[in-house]
Amino acid sequence: MDSFVVGVDIGGTGTKFGIVDNVGNVLFSSEMSTKKHEQVHTFIEELNEKLLELIDKVGGVGRIKGIGVGAPNGNIYTGNIEYAPNLPWRGIIPLAKMIQDKTKLPVKLTNDANAAAVGEMKYGAAQGMNDFIMITLGTGVGSGIVANGQLIYGHDGFAGELGHTIIVPDGRLHPGTGKRGSLESYASATGVTLTAIEILQKSDRPSLLREVAASELNAKIIFDAATKGDELAKEVFDYTGKILGMALANFVMFSSPEAIILFGGLTKAGDFILKPTREHLEANLIEIFQNKVKILVSHLKESDAAILGASALMWE
Amino acid sequence: MDSFVVGVDIGGTGTKFGIVDNVGNVLFSSEMSTKKHEQVHTFIEELNEKLLELIDKVGGVGRIKGIGVGAPNGNIYTGNIEYAPNLPWRGIIPLAKMIQDKTKLPVKLTNDANAAAVGEMKYGAAQGMNDFIMITLGTGVGSGIVANGQLIYGHDGFAGELGHTIIVPDGRLHPGTGKRGSLESYASATGVTLTAIEILQKSDRPSLLREVAASELNAKIIFDAATKGDELAKEVFDYTGKILGMALANFVMFSSPEAIILFGGLTKAGDFILKPTREHLEANLIEIFQNKVKILVSHLKESDAAILGASALMWE
Repeated sequence: MDSFVVGVDIGGTGTKFGIVDNVGNVLFSSEMSTKKHEQVHTFIEELNEKLLELIDKVGGVGRIKGIGVGAPNGNIYTGNIEYAPNLPWRGIIPLAKMIQDKTKLPVKLTNDANAAAVGEMKYGAAQGMNDFIMITLGTGVGSGIVANGQLIYGHDGFAGELGHTIIVPDGRLHPGTGKRGSLESYASATGVTLTAIEILQKSDRPSLLREVAASELNAKIIFDAATKGDELAKEVFDYTGKILGMALANFVMFSSPEAIILFGGLTKAGDFILKPTREHLEANLIEIFQNKVKILVSHLKESDAAILGASALMWE
Repeated sequence: MDSFVVGVDIGGTGTKFGIVDNVGNVLFSSEMSTKKHEQVHTFIEELNEKLLELIDKVGGVGRIKGIGVGAPNGNIYTGNIEYAPNLPWRGIIPLAKMIQDKTKLPVKLTNDANAAAVGEMKYGAAQGMNDFIMITLGTGVGSGIVANGQLIYGHDGFAGELGHTIIVPDGRLHPGTGKRGSLESYASATGVTLTAIEILQKSDRPSLLREVAASELNAKIIFDAATKGDELAKEVFDYTGKILGMALANFVMFSSPEAIILFGGLTKAGDFILKPTREHLEANLIEIFQNKVKILVSHLKESDAAILGASALMWE
């Protein structure tokens, strides 16, 4: 009989989970609130109940190989979530052990970006690749790095925080970390919005974006303006791509991946962001790396990707 | 009977080689000119002859497990040296195969910095470590990265060119690559000298370094001045450490190593360079990485290290 895996993606607001088969079909899925559970114990109770409902539909726990969990600041070595600023639970939470004790199933836990990388390797654009880097461009910038066919966790489980690498020394302040000039300050949805506001304030050039209050501006509005031919909006993506391309060049000279796989909201800007990114990637690479590395956009359905990624941990 | 390995370190000027035992003793060693061999074939002939002399001293080829070779632009996957600018031979040289055909012994080849990392893992400061980064600070800046206990080669064998990562966008021009602001432009012996010249020209502050013609200035002279309390010379190392520390922070956020091991001429500047490097490393790390990573200086004898590193490839 076929066996299945469970993927659980824990976010600050909600948690999604589903049953996944060997080829990446999400057979059944559901979701619940993370935020309303001030206590992790009640969260685990509800998660267990809802998971059992799905598991029963595929024939019971005997058919389940295990549960993969992606969570912010999740640590594969310890199974703990450690000081995750966006979750309701403080300090160090032994989440893998708690889920394992409750469900009696094997549990693996890592951070969401690492899980996404494993998902791409098992089901997505990185199938068959031994060396690639996954970059998630969403509210923040996450990353998972695969080398020699293995996820790089580092000595403490926290490797792959590429969003926090410094690309512009003394650059834009990141309010969450207190550091200046990190990739995430520029190449996230928030970063794109800040870039637009900066460019708008620096000149009087006409732009559709001037019709929007700064507090209402977001990456989607900037993308829509670019689509309508707005030059200033295009410049926002050009600048974002310049910073992202520079950062990617440094990552390539680190681990020389076959491909960089981009995922997340900002990739919807398509060539507005991809073209300058590719251009500045190549411009910053030394010769032996030029025209080798593929920039791919994940083709996993965004609604499924987080569940798929977490579930794939159990096939590793 | 114990077996031994041979280490060969090919440089632009000379080639060093030796017989190494299991615990890192260089039993016999010798060297020859690289530069005088315009043809790689005559180089291989001479190398084979000289190696056989050493091999005979330990009981003949039957005692030799194989030959590890470190060479600029050496590729572990192909066994080729590819377009090495500092060697007398142009294009792609199938060096591992040529040595293997001549000596009838197994041969592994990689670049010199990767070999140095393997040497540290087998015989040096990285013994027992699964995750570390080796940085060589010499005429240039080389690097070898170990994660999950394995050297990261990347999909094409060229991973770990950290000296070419861009740390100062639009910064100092690297004459060899045509890129601006790379780590090597600042944290190499050449970079330190350029920094001194820049600082000397920017002000009229007194300094022992003003007694030296710019064309005669080098890292050793700057170090000697710093030792004598010269403030400007100390500032040169402060600035170098600032750039190096920033770069190391990015590397840590990539692969989260247990340690960074520094090797090469610039490490002789000791705390003049190590103190600012550590300080700026920590200042650029996000909290989860702070006060975790060790900065170690290699304790392998510089005269033996290259041979040891190359030889260690055969124990891998």
